[in-house]
Amino acid sequence: MDTAYLDHASATPVRKEVLETMLPYFDERFANPSNVYDLGSKVKASMEEARAHVADLINADPGQVIFTSSGAEANNLAIKGVGFARQKKGKHVIVSAIEHHSVLNSARFLERLDFEASFLPVDKYGLVDPERLARAIRPETIVVSVMHANTEIGTIQPIAELAAICREKDIVFHTDAVASVGNTPVDANALNVDLLSLSGASLGAAKGIGALYFKKKVRLMPLIHGGIQENGRRAGTENVPGIIGFGTAAALAKKELSEKIDHVRKLRDRLVEGVLKKVEKVTFTGHPQKRLPGHASFCFEAIEGEALIFMLAQKGIYTNTGSACASKALKTSPVLGAIGLRADLAQGSCVFTIDAGNTETEIDYVLEKLPSVVDRLRALSPIWGKEIPEYDEDACH
Amino acid sequence: MDTAYLDHASATPVRKEVLETMLPYFDERFANPSNVYDLGSKVKASMEEARAHVADLINADPGQVIFTSSGAEANNLAIKGVGFARQKKGKHVIVSAIEHHSVLNSARFLERLDFEASFLPVDKYGLVDPERLARAIRPETIVVSVMHANTEIGTIQPIAELAAICREKDIVFHTDAVASVGNTPVDANALNVDLLSLSGASLGAAKGIGALYFKKKVRLMPLIHGGIQENGRRAGTENVPGIIGFGTAAALAKKELSEKIDHVRKLRDRLVEGVLKKVEKVTFTGHPQKRLPGHASFCFEAIEGEALIFMLAQKGIYTNTGSACASKALKTSPVLGAIGLRADLAQGSCVFTIDAGNTETEIDYVLEKLPSVVDRLRALSPIWGKEIPEYDEDACH
Repeated sequence: MDTAYLDHASATPVRKEVLETMLPYFDERFANPSNVYDLGSKVKASMEEARAHVADLINADPGQVIFTSSGAEANNLAIKGVGFARQKKGKHVIVSAIEHHSVLNSARFLERLDFEASFLPVDKYGLVDPERLARAIRPETIVVSVMHANTEIGTIQPIAELAAICREKDIVFHTDAVASVGNTPVDANALNVDLLSLSGASLGAAKGIGALYFKKKVRLMPLIHGGIQENGRRAGTENVPGIIGFGTAAALAKKELSEKIDHVRKLRDRLVEGVLKKVEKVTFTGHPQKRLPGHASFCFEAIEGEALIFMLAQKGIYTNTGSACASKALKTSPVLGAIGLRADLAQGSCVFTIDAGNTETEIDYVLEKLPSVVDRLRALSPIWGKEIPEYDEDACH
Repeated sequence: MDTAYLDHASATPVRKEVLETMLPYFDERFANPSNVYDLGSKVKASMEEARAHVADLINADPGQVIFTSSGAEANNLAIKGVGFARQKKGKHVIVSAIEHHSVLNSARFLERLDFEASFLPVDKYGLVDPERLARAIRPETIVVSVMHANTEIGTIQPIAELAAICREKDIVFHTDAVASVGNTPVDANALNVDLLSLSGASLGAAKGIGALYFKKKVRLMPLIHGGIQENGRRAGTENVPGIIGFGTAAALAKKELSEKIDHVRKLRDRLVEGVLKKVEKVTFTGHPQKRLPGHASFCFEAIEGEALIFMLAQKGIYTNTGSACASKALKTSPVLGAIGLRADLAQGSCVFTIDAGNTETEIDYVLEKLPSVVDRLRALSPIWGKEIPEYDEDACH
């Protein structure tokens, strides 16, 4: 059977070159990097090399990178870490309505501790309006979080502009760049953000490793208290092989990024054109231009997304309804709700995330199989054929 | 050069059998376990098998195990998770004075949020007195944490007795069993604790994976908010290879535990007898019998522990001053302070942690080299030869 794995946002195989550099750190070079003796300090030195590669990928200094166990942990550390560290200044946080659950639920956790949280609406493309952010800011606002690129709809936000508004008012600005680092250029310095989350798995490193970039003056309460690892900002014995692999993956990502972008953009455009041509009543979600190059997201009218994913998988085509970690939790995506997509249309969400290893043949295989799968599902649908508008214009701003 | 690695509490190589089971999950079986399609659900099934092995090692049900990124994260989740979930009932927590930094600093974090924390003193062997715990409990006490075995002095606490006191008063009881699981039998059910932390690295699994055992009725606020991984108790894409390896390591640990205990106890006794015979003015710290079988800890009078560690390492002998993650943070160990050891004697701390792979030859090599290293360091010491008592009896209870 032919296959086409197009769900790289939810998981990507660890690259061979990455795994090779990790392997010695499981056994030969197993020492604890905190140890004072040579075995430990050698491991520590390799870990710092890896940190430099990760920093370099986002144009940061190595001293600005804290390793975490995932992008989700980095997001929690950012929101709660600033929340707890700055609560004497104020107890108001702002996050966009389309953030990852790790940001949304961190804000909701703070609400339970007598903080106030505002959830910034977005337009039908998923964009946050800088003026709207400016109006949402209060004297007691201490942190704002808007993600760089959205996993479900691919839209890239005007981060530098949003960050500038916050910088002027001494508000810490965080961006979740888990979906974008390695897929589009991310320059933490140029974006002028205070905090930026990233994940190793997005780059072909192993699951279980992430990082938080931080501007040195930002005060952060640790999320995991304990020893003085990561300069006292994140306790627990370091996931050394994970960190080493993250470093290798970051170095490769930097070298290959522009070539990768050209490749995946071409495939993505081929896919989008093909789908819009071959399938009727389908909405291409997110911003048409300001989006991740390898990201194509659609909502198919009168179709249940999970059924579509399932039937495509039976043909060897792997895609996603949206955010993998929420896929079993929620019937309707809050992201698609926030862009004002009608609930029944939002049910038919299908996201393709393309990586460097994908080929034209795979895209063509999808274009060959997808229309008939959609047809079969629609034939079973009680709502297929009814006339309803795509977006509820009142639901977004 | 001969070598003897005797610092297994701070790091242990990943076992060959463990690494072999992990490898396919980096590339072939890379899918996200949250995904609905077959690639994901197969990974999920393997992850659940691993969970069953980890649960089995501590006589728990698989549904009682939450995977975390480390023992430190598990400790933070336990203390803060109960703190936040039960704060309406009361805001008082009790931890022993010799807990790992991840417990101590979690309690201190809660203090900053208007909780009160009591730090239970211990006797000269490091034991918590159950009567003393009973007296420290207040109507507003919500959680008590006493570690199963201490990394620095090896002492094993009367956990079942302490837990029973808390159960009677509806107080959640947590034990940090990171140092003991895999080194001595740990039966969460028999100990009758509510929460128990463990770490994969202690069993020959990789760094970056830990777990928290929980009794089902215990309410826990997540430490990492986000998706619904780990039944909503710990968000973030799972460290699948780490989890798979933890499962293998747990299965092996269960099978080999009693044989390992016999082996390391014999080596430990040989080391302790040898050191006490060959070196004068040395204190064997911790409880002489109620201690981890592979654990020997000493304080050498008029010696700086780090210098000793460093000089031993030059002879290929790897040991530790105490807790690896604190080794660069603190001049004096709070554990050795809590057992009332004089500060200058506590400076000369040296901890040996023996694993199944160690040999009699290695112990004899240590016994051959250690005395002359101690002599050389003492010859340089300004305080060597002065008469001072070992313990300050007023400093512990």
